[in-house]
Amino acid sequence: MTREERNRRPSPAATSPPEQTEPWVNSRFMKACRLEPTDTKPVWLMRQAGRYMKEYRDLRARVPFLELCKSPHLAAEVTVTAAERLGVDAAIMFADLLLIAEPLGFEVEYDQSEGPSVRPALRDAADVKRLREVNAQESLGYLFDAIRLTRAELNPKLPLLGFAGAPFTLASYLIEGGGSRHYRHTKSLMYRDPGAWRALMEHLARNVANSVNGQIAAGVQAVQIFDTWVGCLNPADYREFVLPFTRLLIERITPGVPVIHFGMGTGMLLEAMREAGGHILGLDFHVELDEAWARLERAAGTRVGIQGNLDPAVLFADLSYIRERARKILDQAGGRPGHIFNLGHGILPDTPVDHVVALVDYVHELSHGAHAASREK
Amino acid sequence: MTREERNRRPSPAATSPPEQTEPWVNSRFMKACRLEPTDTKPVWLMRQAGRYMKEYRDLRARVPFLELCKSPHLAAEVTVTAAERLGVDAAIMFADLLLIAEPLGFEVEYDQSEGPSVRPALRDAADVKRLREVNAQESLGYLFDAIRLTRAELNPKLPLLGFAGAPFTLASYLIEGGGSRHYRHTKSLMYRDPGAWRALMEHLARNVANSVNGQIAAGVQAVQIFDTWVGCLNPADYREFVLPFTRLLIERITPGVPVIHFGMGTGMLLEAMREAGGHILGLDFHVELDEAWARLERAAGTRVGIQGNLDPAVLFADLSYIRERARKILDQAGGRPGHIFNLGHGILPDTPVDHVVALVDYVHELSHGAHAASREK
Repeated sequence: MTREERNRRPSPAATSPPEQTEPWVNSRFMKACRLEPTDTKPVWLMRQAGRYMKEYRDLRARVPFLELCKSPHLAAEVTVTAAERLGVDAAIMFADLLLIAEPLGFEVEYDQSEGPSVRPALRDAADVKRLREVNAQESLGYLFDAIRLTRAELNPKLPLLGFAGAPFTLASYLIEGGGSRHYRHTKSLMYRDPGAWRALMEHLARNVANSVNGQIAAGVQAVQIFDTWVGCLNPADYREFVLPFTRLLIERITPGVPVIHFGMGTGMLLEAMREAGGHILGLDFHVELDEAWARLERAAGTRVGIQGNLDPAVLFADLSYIRERARKILDQAGGRPGHIFNLGHGILPDTPVDHVVALVDYVHELSHGAHAASREK
Repeated sequence: MTREERNRRPSPAATSPPEQTEPWVNSRFMKACRLEPTDTKPVWLMRQAGRYMKEYRDLRARVPFLELCKSPHLAAEVTVTAAERLGVDAAIMFADLLLIAEPLGFEVEYDQSEGPSVRPALRDAADVKRLREVNAQESLGYLFDAIRLTRAELNPKLPLLGFAGAPFTLASYLIEGGGSRHYRHTKSLMYRDPGAWRALMEHLARNVANSVNGQIAAGVQAVQIFDTWVGCLNPADYREFVLPFTRLLIERITPGVPVIHFGMGTGMLLEAMREAGGHILGLDFHVELDEAWARLERAAGTRVGIQGNLDPAVLFADLSYIRERARKILDQAGGRPGHIFNLGHGILPDTPVDHVVALVDYVHELSHGAHAASREK
């Protein structure tokens, strides 16, 4: 697809809702994705189903992480329980960025404290050649089953989100063999063998797109692309080594389905990430939402949606302070449609659940009618 | 000191060189700190004395880290060896950010793989009250001895840098009990008990200033303030919880001594860090040097020096690629005086020493005469 063709693609705001009006189509979340006004601000929280929640810890005491991801009934239960408990405006399918690593030819182990380990680490062009093509229906069937179950159980007014790792973040896990601090091996491959790097990134973009489209076919209403670790790059490296492949992924996603594009430490990359694609850009907590949004609109020349961006550490503060900080984000977003309230990173372990519930309530309470009021101005 | 008084302080460019002209006074590095033109670009590298160097690993096989810091002859040897081996334009005293934690009342242990651990972790107002005042001459005498020895051994044309942790970074180590990923406890104290936070930050600013001034009295020519972890904050939090205390520290540093102010992940904080102080702002590798410098000059309304900012992972690439990336940084800096070439973070372990030596040579070779040429335009 050429640049011109891309520019001619309808923006989400111009996309008409599906013919058969499912109950979620005019939910706050889906309206915000289409940059339409809402009565109250939609809110969901990254890692809303996770270790901070007792129900989840109890389940995990019995079931290892990977088994949980691969058990459709349990994954559906975790997804629905979290969304209902918090009163958020969207559920996100309980799953993991690295589920696709197995069918790509890697062994993945999850250690509660250390994070995932991926073996054998991918280090050179020969390793790239050994990557397998993923038959998503076959190897990720459990995920699609979980989505179907979740969609059936979930309040039909709530949209369900799918997600996947962006090519860079996925590549960094495969190359480093897990999480990393300096991305030394990832950058070494990038700088030393750009040909192998491109082959790897293309392979990942194509296969991740298949997984995302499988999730959409199974019943998710929107997807978030996590380029969690891409903030380790400067803008020039991002444009050369990442942007074309994230764009390739996003362009292959089923048209009409809103895409949220998120990464950590991306304050310097926002304009380039916007160029890579996505209808909504997810902001981390290092940026001021109003400044970031203004920058993006200046750069893009068109309206763009924003998700974010409360610092998850604020949830350890007193309730009155949490309320004040939630209000600040809402004020920064102003009455403009196209803002989805979220944290600027996932909920941290040990976060008090009642503080999380309170945050969701504050967002609803403080934003109720505000949009309507601003529309009348 | 009021804002007006600060503004009346002479900029480094306006400071006359000391009366007795020590050989280092008109070195490239000191000239760059004064924003004066140089024949060739000055370069030094963060962590230039470190694990990547065989001489250092051999010494560390015999001597534990803390013992090395506390042995003036060995610390001097490590400092001088690295500077001479690399051919850089400044030496930086081998020491550690956390040396001051001991006299503040903490026990510090260094584990080669895990990083430092600090006990007991500081968590509340009562812990802040228990902080000790540091008698720098008594408790950091070994550091000042090491500086005197190093200054005597080092090529007299090479400036010697001292350094210290900024209050926030130091506070985060004391509160988290070591390194951290999410700074949960640090931010909790900040958000929940701003009074205790301010008392802590003032205590640290005052005591760090004494340590820095002790280093200056012992013989360093410039200092770098490392606010390594401050990039975990957004600009509003930085301005409220950090800026006043970093300013307090920098204002207390002996006048006339150049101060380099550096932090990681600070792309969104540069303007505020500049307000906090420092003659040279150290850039990490996430920003484009030319854009960052332009932003800073716009915001400050005056000239400001820049240090940085090659990604240390580039040193794992081929020599020709390293040369190309060094040239790019030099091009971004242009002929403007006041740029000190450096990495955008410390040299990584396992970096090939010959690549580091080659980088220093490239910077000298590629920048030689360039400044003179640009001055003639």
